[in-house]
Amino acid sequence: MTRPRKRIPEHGRMAFKGILFEVWQWEQEMFDGSTSTFERLKRPDTAQVIATVGDKILSLMQKQPDSTQAFPSIPGGRCDEREEPLASAKRELLEETGYTSDDWRLWKETEPFSKMEWTVYTYIARNCTKVQEPHLDAGEKIELKLISFDELLALTDADDFYDRELVEPLLRARYSESEKQKLFALFFGDGQ
Amino acid sequence: MTRPRKRIPEHGRMAFKGILFEVWQWEQEMFDGSTSTFERLKRPDTAQVIATVGDKILSLMQKQPDSTQAFPSIPGGRCDEREEPLASAKRELLEETGYTSDDWRLWKETEPFSKMEWTVYTYIARNCTKVQEPHLDAGEKIELKLISFDELLALTDADDFYDRELVEPLLRARYSESEKQKLFALFFGDGQ
Repeated sequence: MTRPRKRIPEHGRMAFKGILFEVWQWEQEMFDGSTSTFERLKRPDTAQVIATVGDKILSLMQKQPDSTQAFPSIPGGRCDEREEPLASAKRELLEETGYTSDDWRLWKETEPFSKMEWTVYTYIARNCTKVQEPHLDAGEKIELKLISFDELLALTDADDFYDRELVEPLLRARYSESEKQKLFALFFGDGQ
Repeated sequence: MTRPRKRIPEHGRMAFKGILFEVWQWEQEMFDGSTSTFERLKRPDTAQVIATVGDKILSLMQKQPDSTQAFPSIPGGRCDEREEPLASAKRELLEETGYTSDDWRLWKETEPFSKMEWTVYTYIARNCTKVQEPHLDAGEKIELKLISFDELLALTDADDFYDRELVEPLLRARYSESEKQKLFALFFGDGQ
């Protein structure tokens, strides 16, 4: 489910560069020949991981410094500048959980918000094994939880499930037996 | 499906005010006692409408000045400053389609993006009637289309369906007969 990309045009200029977000503007010709200033955002891409361990999936209960409530998510985080999304996914999985895998594939590439150049890459890492303790930074409090495939699908009912762009494909699998089998095989392999 | 709201704290300051977006920043205490600058966006809220005409729903094929492709959506747009969302919904429906209704109810209030103070209000307007021709502004090219309830549900498969926050509830109705009946009654009344 990827929408056609709307890009900031060549003649756009960066009007503001913040900590996370950049604001870009350009003069846009309207349908009646007049012009108007248009605006779009940029932010670093995100890489996240469906990481399987046996027949379970690694989930996180995470707390952030500006909120008292923990929320469920999968491992992942911001891509560093000039870092390939797959490298970011591997780094974030290792940092947040201490797990690695040698069986990676890209599952989804979504652009959640039409007025923002921002891509979320979701990878599948099969048969993960633990190689170290997690290395969390000062802005992270994370509790690891191994959940079943059905428990992952049930997260589509959780208002505070962080990874909203996964709700749509997980809902399809939850409601359609054939979609569910396909997704299960993708996450865990088909036994061959 | 509303997530717990994460608000810009009292001591936040506006670092940039653009055409559409504001960037806010504040010093956040981290878990280890250090501080870090956090950032969040604000933008005007959106009001949109499931508008029924007989047993059909008003949909739009819309073009925007910065894209050559038309995309499907429902009527709606930006809330003006100090305008109540219901008033915005009525205004946008009238401007974009020429239709009005005297039977309005709020269906959904969603905050699509956790790092942005932005609420999307989705209203249901039953039994709409046409009272004037649409009044489009210089940034709009719109073709009206009356679609069936099933055609609306099928838009969940369209990559370019604009109203992404509706995909989740529409998918649930598409896959669950009981959810479908509930939603149909909500949109069209239960015949009483």
